[in-house]
Formats: sequence, structure tokens, C-alpha cells
Amino acid sequence: MILGQNQYGKAENRVVRITRDGSTHHIKDLNVSVSLSGDMTDVHLSGSNANILTTDTTKNTVFAFAKEHGIASAEEFGIRLARHFVTGQPAITTARIRVEEYAWGRIETPGSKRHSFVRENQEVRTAQITFDGTAWEVVSGLKDLVVLNSTDSEFTGYVKDRYTTLPETRDRILATQVQACWRHAGHDADRTGPHADWEDSYRQAREHLLQAFAGTYSLSLQQTLYRMGTRVLENCPGIEEIRLSLPNKHHFLADLEPFGLENDNEVYFAADRPYGLIEATVLRDGAEPRIPVDLTNL
Amino acid sequence: MILGQNQYGKAENRVVRITRDGSTHHIKDLNVSVSLSGDMTDVHLSGSNANILTTDTTKNTVFAFAKEHGIASAEEFGIRLARHFVTGQPAITTARIRVEEYAWGRIETPGSKRHSFVRENQEVRTAQITFDGTAWEVVSGLKDLVVLNSTDSEFTGYVKDRYTTLPETRDRILATQVQACWRHAGHDADRTGPHADWEDSYRQAREHLLQAFAGTYSLSLQQTLYRMGTRVLENCPGIEEIRLSLPNKHHFLADLEPFGLENDNEVYFAADRPYGLIEATVLRDGAEPRIPVDLTNL
Amino acid sequence: MILGQNQYGKAENRVVRITRDGSTHHIKDLNVSVSLSGDMTDVHLSGSNANILTTDTTKNTVFAFAKEHGIASAEEFGIRLARHFVTGQPAITTARIRVEEYAWGRIETPGSKRHSFVRENQEVRTAQITFDGTAWEVVSGLKDLVVLNSTDSEFTGYVKDRYTTLPETRDRILATQVQACWRHAGHDADRTGPHADWEDSYRQAREHLLQAFAGTYSLSLQQTLYRMGTRVLENCPGIEEIRLSLPNKHHFLADLEPFGLENDNEVYFAADRPYGLIEATVLRDGAEPRIPVDLTNL
Amino acid sequence: MILGQNQYGKAENRVVRITRDGSTHHIKDLNVSVSLSGDMTDVHLSGSNANILTTDTTKNTVFAFAKEHGIASAEEFGIRLARHFVTGQPAITTARIRVEEYAWGRIETPGSKRHSFVRENQEVRTAQITFDGTAWEVVSGLKDLVVLNSTDSEFTGYVKDRYTTLPETRDRILATQVQACWRHAGHDADRTGPHADWEDSYRQAREHLLQAFAGTYSLSLQQTLYRMGTRVLENCPGIEEIRLSLPNKHHFLADLEPFGLENDNEVYFAADRPYGLIEATVLRDGAEPRIPVDLTNL
Repeated sequence: MILGQNQYGKAENRVVRITRDGSTHHIKDLNVSVSLSGDMTDVHLSGSNANILTTDTTKNTVFAFAKEHGIASAEEFGIRLARHFVTGQPAITTARIRVEEYAWGRIETPGSKRHSFVRENQEVRTAQITFDGTAWEVVSGLKDLVVLNSTDSEFTGYVKDRYTTLPETRDRILATQVQACWRHAGHDADRTGPHADWEDSYRQAREHLLQAFAGTYSLSLQQTLYRMGTRVLENCPGIEEIRLSLPNKHHFLADLEPFGLENDNEVYFAADRPYGLIEATVLRDGAEPRIPVDLTNL
Repeated sequence: MILGQNQYGKAENRVVRITRDGSTHHIKDLNVSVSLSGDMTDVHLSGSNANILTTDTTKNTVFAFAKEHGIASAEEFGIRLARHFVTGQPAITTARIRVEEYAWGRIETPGSKRHSFVRENQEVRTAQITFDGTAWEVVSGLKDLVVLNSTDSEFTGYVKDRYTTLPETRDRILATQVQACWRHAGHDADRTGPHADWEDSYRQAREHLLQAFAGTYSLSLQQTLYRMGTRVLENCPGIEEIRLSLPNKHHFLADLEPFGLENDNEVYFAADRPYGLIEATVLRDGAEPRIPVDLTNL
Repeated sequence: MILGQNQYGKAENRVVRITRDGSTHHIKDLNVSVSLSGDMTDVHLSGSNANILTTDTTKNTVFAFAKEHGIASAEEFGIRLARHFVTGQPAITTARIRVEEYAWGRIETPGSKRHSFVRENQEVRTAQITFDGTAWEVVSGLKDLVVLNSTDSEFTGYVKDRYTTLPETRDRILATQVQACWRHAGHDADRTGPHADWEDSYRQAREHLLQAFAGTYSLSLQQTLYRMGTRVLENCPGIEEIRLSLPNKHHFLADLEPFGLENDNEVYFAADRPYGLIEATVLRDGAEPRIPVDLTNL
Repeated sequence: MILGQNQYGKAENRVVRITRDGSTHHIKDLNVSVSLSGDMTDVHLSGSNANILTTDTTKNTVFAFAKEHGIASAEEFGIRLARHFVTGQPAITTARIRVEEYAWGRIETPGSKRHSFVRENQEVRTAQITFDGTAWEVVSGLKDLVVLNSTDSEFTGYVKDRYTTLPETRDRILATQVQACWRHAGHDADRTGPHADWEDSYRQAREHLLQAFAGTYSLSLQQTLYRMGTRVLENCPGIEEIRLSLPNKHHFLADLEPFGLENDNEVYFAADRPYGLIEATVLRDGAEPRIPVDLTNL
């Protein structure tokens, strides 16, 4: 028997960092998962933990680093953690840090106090940082961004086989729950790790995804997906590759004919399962595909 | 044996209503649950369905009504459905309609087209309408409104018994996931049902909940809850009773002392379970308590 | 403004108790929620915690009691906790303890060691104990018990109105996810609390629910529900009242006609939403209905 | 821009197949997800659906095949579907079918009727079949198999760095929620696809996982994982590779010292997050690793 790829760490460390700027507070709310690999044959074969930095220690490190270094962004925080684990322990050769970030808005109040927040947005921001001692890989993303176009979507001209019953349509709702991961370029320079304005980068990518979804007259969800991916690559020079996973959240026209009512694209039944699932990668010319086929950003 | 309270209907009808105003579209996205009761002894004892309007028919009615009458608000739609079932079938004496409503914002795009939406907010709006042929009860509410104060909360002066270990604190995070139901007054007038500007009423109640949470220097979550409830009653004359269920979403100070670090209310661990759970009703003087102790708005 | 019903406590304390009988171990795996009420006006109005036994203390008590008294059953453990809180603190007049219990089976292995377990069953056992210093109420139950009859269910003879399209059927799948709560009799004797063989009582009630579901030729889910309730009452003399909440987990015949195939009750589509929801209480003659209309056993 | 890997299909088709053998019925309850890829550049770039077999058609095919061919096993059913899509449509070159299967037991009743079932087990069986017109890959597995040893687990001898606070322990609970995928050998023979007794193969793999978990005196979860993987490979000659993902479901000893109580491994707090996560592949000598690092069996 052979031991193949293996990794371990503490998953889902829920760390909240408050920064006080006088009476104005700022909040970062993350879910951090650590995955380490390296010289781990002994622990699997004999149970010797001599090379094991415990998962409990990795958890402690997450919280200590939040204090010592603050959390400027999910990516920056992950880079710092990955560097620490790989450079700090000889047995650990690769670290992968995954982060979910939850969005908070301010509750606007009279007076000067600014320490009250309300969770906003449905979507979760994600980041995955991998460092093997030499090369860095930073993949940012989001999930659960739910969007809907109430028109400008049709679906026609497809293959008909024995099992095809779907009628063609010139006007339908197109809705999806976006899961997207995009890989940043040029991150093999040195051990300090990549630098970027990760907050701004995320805002831009998210906005281009929304604009491409809203602005595309859709002949298929694949076409919309491809426009979303290319728009991000066209406008964000630091991004080399993007993968999108788009469930087709079907909104079926309610059949009102039995009641003598015409349904002129007004009343829909929002179905749960099954759902179409459209997934694809879009790459910059010359870029190497490295995002896995199945997105698993936590 | 005696048959006690019983009710039946179709739960979780996911209806989406699009209204087109030229190139500007509007969306209402509801989850509607119907519960009917009345002369239903036979169906339980003998299986005779002679008095049964099927749950499938109640589902059809939801979709047909969305077409025939539109959806001005969750409450208005529920009132119309409740009236229909009670007045339309002699065997049905009471109808309870529950509605969840999901919030959508617009994706702002260049050009004049306005048919693109993005799900926003974490919280879900709720409404429950009950009609027994004479009296109406309208209970509006929300759930999953997550809020957090990063200071202005303390917890001291409590009972200490043999099992008490909690240290007192003068500065803590106070966070909760608001579930609230408020009952509207004066709804026993006639069979057409109550009228109000339900959209505005909801916006106001939600805003007062946020303002009371943010503006209260908190000595206990009970005190904050009571301020939230009273603020709604003080500012919304049409509301007679409100019940709040507030889980204390604990944010524990990370213990960084073993690492020689001081944690000056900066780094917190957001815990899942267990959690404190604080629940109470606040009533206008003379109002009768009618909201159940355990909130179950869907 | 008036403060109405209020309660507080620590919810979802996940306590696991191991008992060692030589090399044979036993496990109890509970989720315990404490809810206390009493003289709590001050904490709501002024924030004074002088009457507050903290939720943290109630959590500690759960774990300490698991050590000091063991966990003979969910009900016995809840009774002990309720008595402690009401008799131990003058300000606390009522305690409600809710328990979920998860089922574990043994992994049978060669040799004499018996300390390995596997989670079994889909369903969760529940218990709710309420004590106000005088009267006891013990409500046992279960949830997520998923059952299915592949025949012996029909649905005909119902009301047809304008919105009815459902065809009658003489043979359908009947499937549901049982949620049931049953209230035990005679529990107002003294402050030590009610006594019973709660483990055996639960096993019997569960088995009668299964047998009634399987053994009833069903003309409606209401009829099946009523048979389930009456069978429990007929066979379990200590039970006075039972409430059942039965979602009709629809299994629709797949329409295979377009493919020239006949579907003779062989292939079904298991739908998620919407679903019928049938709820009713069955009582012993003379019993007072006390289980709430909406089941919320955690 | 370049279009990279892409795939599409209908996910989560919930098909239930009843087979009647006189008054004895049998049930298969699956959740089937179809993923197709091939010559799909046009649909992404121009929105032309000329090569698209719609996701709706793939759904219809699942239900039609359940009628035409029955469901002997998740794997056999998936193989048939994959072959159909790849051989039936020139544009489709690869099909990946994923299946979840839910376990039902019989409700034993008096009399000869055998058509009543109850959902049993916590775990879900999984299968993934991939066919590219030449080579077959069959990966079976399971998820949510929750197991616990109440002793015979220790954890000592690990690295201590600045952030280490965890005390060593000679006796702890070891609990996990097994997710496992195992790849079958020798499936590149012909277009009819691989043959095996999939039902028996699954039963054996599951049992060896349980026995290895229960029978290993554990010095680390990695060691237990490796024993689970090797035991399956040693005993199931048709399996070449297995990957396990084992969250360490921490059961922390409740600290009862403040109450003057000794906790001799009796009372535990079952924590939710964070959790250790241990993942590894074990391969037969000479086997090529093909199971992805992140398990995503639906």
C-alpha cells in the first residue's frame, strides 16, 4: 500500500476582529480553514506525532495572528498564515488556507458612535491561498450570489432526441446562484508572498460579474457564464483564470390555463430540485488551468 | 378518543410574481403556506374526503391569485387568500396563511432596462394572517436579521451559585439574530379584511428594531430586547403586541495570554452552540397576548 | 407598555455521557435547552441582573448534573434539571427543559471490547419537561422519522372547485416525515417529579406509530394520522394527548407517456416543495389539550 | 480568452423506483446528477444550442431509464446513463453521473404485506461514473457515516511551538463523520462498461471501514484513517484507490473542577466548530492517483 496525497489542519475557525478608530469601529468576520501537508508518512503508518503541529495549534495561530497582524483582507491574512506554517516547521512543505468572509454593513444612527452592524448580502466572499515554499497561488471568489433577470433570456434550437419534451421559449426568467473562483497571476516571486489591493480587486470582480449577468441578452446560461468570465478577465488584468458554477434556478411559468387565465410571463413557480448546473473555466491566453473542476471554496 | 385541533394545507408554495412597467420590472418573491381547519372530523375518522379542498387546490389558488390580483404585499396577499378559503367552502371555518418574503435589490446598469435583480439582506420578512369568518389577526415579522454591537454592552451583578464560573464583564460584543413577530390592532371590522400600508409598516418596524438595538447601552440582552419591543410599540400605533426571540450569539474573547499577547477586546471567537436564548413579549396597555410563546413564523 | 411572557436560558448544550461497565461502554448523546422564567421584570426594564442565574450557569449545571446524577433517560435528566432550577432560585418560578437525543448503535467487533458506536436512525428523540413548582408536564416525542408505504393509499372523493386540477388516484405512494409529541398523564403529584420507565415508554410509542402507519389502508393522510394517534393512546395508558405533524412528502408518478412508456406505479419523482402538511391532536376522553398547535420540540 | 474545462447537466434528480414482487415491494431511492461535456464551444461563445442535449432531456432520461432498465444498483444505473449520453450524441464526449442513494429498512408487520419502509442509517451511499467513450472510471463511496470510540485513543508526542497549548492525553473520545470514495480497478475494457456485484462490494467496503475504525488503538486520527484505507484495499481486490476525509468531531472533557467534581472521562462537550480535518489517499502499489484531493461526491 502507498500513502498518497494527504493534508490536515483545523477547519472553520470563526474569528472576528474589531478595530477601534476612536468611536468608529471596524469589523472583519472570517471563517478560516488551515490545511497542511509535508513529511507526514510516519503519523499515518505508525501514529508517531513527532512531525505534527497539532490542529489545535493551527487554531491558536489564527487567533494570535488576528491580534498580532490584524486582518487587512482575507487574502493578506491567508498569505501570512501560509508563510508562517511553511517557513516555521521543517516537516510542513505546503500550506493551504481557505477563508470565508461575511459582509457587515453599518446601522446608521444619530450621534457619533459607530459600532453597530447588520449582516448584509446573501453572498459569502472566499479566498484560498496555497504556498509550497516557492510558488504562491491565490484564488479569490464568492458563493451564494443570487441573481435574476426577469426577461432577455431565451432558449431555443437545441437537440431533440427521444426523451426531449421541453418546449422552446423566447422569454424566460434566468436566475442563478453564482459560485465563482478566480486565480490571480504572477505569484511566484518570493517568500514574502504576493501583494495587491485585495479589497478593491474583490469589489471589481464582483461588480463585473453582476454587470455581465445583467447586461447579457442570454441565449443559453453557458453564454451568460462565458460573458461573466470574459468580462472579469478583460477588466481585471491581475486575474488569469476564472471558474464559474451556475445552477440554473428554474422558475417555471405557472400553468394557469385550467383556470381560464393567461400567464403572460407574470407568475412563476420557483423550483428547488432538480436544477441545471452549468460549469466552465475561462482562461487568459497562455494561462495554465489550475482551478479544480469541482469548486469547493469551503 | 377525541380529535383535537387539526389543520391542513399546502406548505411552502414558492411563487414569484413579475410586474412589467415598460422596461422596468418589479419582483415579489414569496413562500406561501396555507393551513385550513373546520368540519374535518370525517376525514380523520373514516377517511371521507367530502369536506376536503385538496392541498393541491390550495396551491393552485396561490398561483392563480398571484395572476388575478397581483401581490401588493405579503399581508394583502395573505388576507385575500384567507378570505377566499373561509368564504368559499362551507366546511372551512378558519384559514391561516403564512408568508415568507425574500428581498431583492436592483442591479444598476447603464441604459434604460431595469429587469435585473440581486438577492439582498440576510433577513426574511414574514407575515401570518388568520381569519375565522369573523375576526382577523395579522402578525407581521422578520427572522434572521443578524446584528452586532462591538461595544456598549456589559454584564454584571448576576446571581452566583455553586455552578457559576462566568466572570463579569464591562465591555463585550453583543450580537443576535433577531426573530420578531408583531400583531396589528383593530382587525375585527368586516369580512373584507384589514387595510394598511403594509410595506411602509414593515419598513418602519424593521428600522425601529435596528435603531433600538444600536442605540441601547446594554446591561443585559433582556434590557435590549425590551427596548426593541417598546420602541416599535411607541412608534407604530397600529401594533399592539410584539414578541422577540433573541439568541445571544456569543463572541468570546480569544485567550491570547499563553502567547504573551494582550487581547484588548480585539479578537473574538464566534461560537455556534450553546447559545443564550432570550424571549419576551411586549404589549400595549390593555392588549391581549395572542402571539404564541414559541415563534414559528414558517 | 407591559412586559408579557418571557423566558431565557442556554439552548443546545451538547452533552455526551459515557458510562463504563468494565470493557463495555454505554453512551448517551443529548442536546439540552434550558428555559427559565419568573420574577424577571427588573432585568427587562432596568437591566438589573440581580435575579438572573446566568445562561452560562445553566450550561454548567447541565454538564455537572451529567456527572453527579448520570443520564438515565432524556426525561429523567430533564426532570432533575427543572426541579433544581425552580427549587434552587427564589426568582425562578418555572423551568422548561427540552432535550434532543441521538441514537447510537454498537459496531459489533471480535473480542470483548465494546466501546465503538455508529450513529443510527434518521429520527431524533425529543422530550420537554415543564415544572412550575407545583405541576409537572412531560411531553415526549420524536422528529424526522421518515416512513413510506408503496401502496395501499388512495385519494378520491374530495371537493372540486374552480382551482382543482388534481386527478383522483386509487394507488399512490404515501410518505411522510413524522413529528410527534405525546403528553404523559398524572404528573402533578409532588416536587420529586414524575416517575416512569421512559426508555420503554419511548420504544413502545415509536413502534405503535410505525405499526399504525404501515397497517392502515389509507384513504387520506388525515385518516392515517388519526390511526397513528389513537393507536398510541390505546396502547400506552400513561399517555393522555398526542399531536402529530405529518408533511405529505409527495412522490409524483413520472410522466413517461411522451416516451411511449407506461408507468405502472413504478417510477416516482420525489418532490421537495410545496408539500401537504397535515396536523392534528388526538386526546383521551376528558383530557385537556395542552400541546401547542405548532410543534417546536427544539 | 480561452474556454477551459466545461460541463453541464441536470443535478439532483430525485428518482424513486418501486419493484413489486407479489405483495413484497422493493424500493430504490436515488438522487442522480448528470454532467456532460464535449464539443461545447459554440454554446459558450455564440449561444448556439445546436449541440446541446438539454438538461431537461437528461432529467427525462433518468426517469425513463428507471422504468426501462430498473435500478439494480447506483453504479449499474450510472453506467447505463453514461453510456447512453456518450454513445447517443456525437457532440458529447464525456459523461459523469453522480448518484446518492438513501437507505430504507422494512417496517416489519404482521401479515404477508411487505410494502412499508422506514429510512434508516445516517449515511448516504454515493457513486460516480465517468465515461469518455473509451475508458470507464467508477468511484463508489459514502458520506455522513458517524462513528465514535469512547476509549483506545490517545494523542501525545506532537510538536510544541509558541502557539501550542493543547495538553497531551492518554484517553480521549475519537469521533468522526466518515466521507470516503474508493475507485474500482480495471474498467477500460469495452463500451458495455464494467460489471461487478456493486451491492455486495459496497457492503464489504462499509463494513471494513467500520471494523478498522473500531479495531484500531489510535495514536492519531491519521493512523486510524490509514488503517481504514488499507483494510479496504487489503480485503477488496477490486479497489485500487481510496480517499478518506475525516473531520475530528471533538468531544472535549467538560471542566467540572470548579464544582469540586472529578471528570474521569465521563462527561463531554460535543463541539461544532472548529474541527480538525484529516484527509488522505491510500493506493494499491502501482495504482495511479485519480480521486481529487477535495471529495465532492455530490
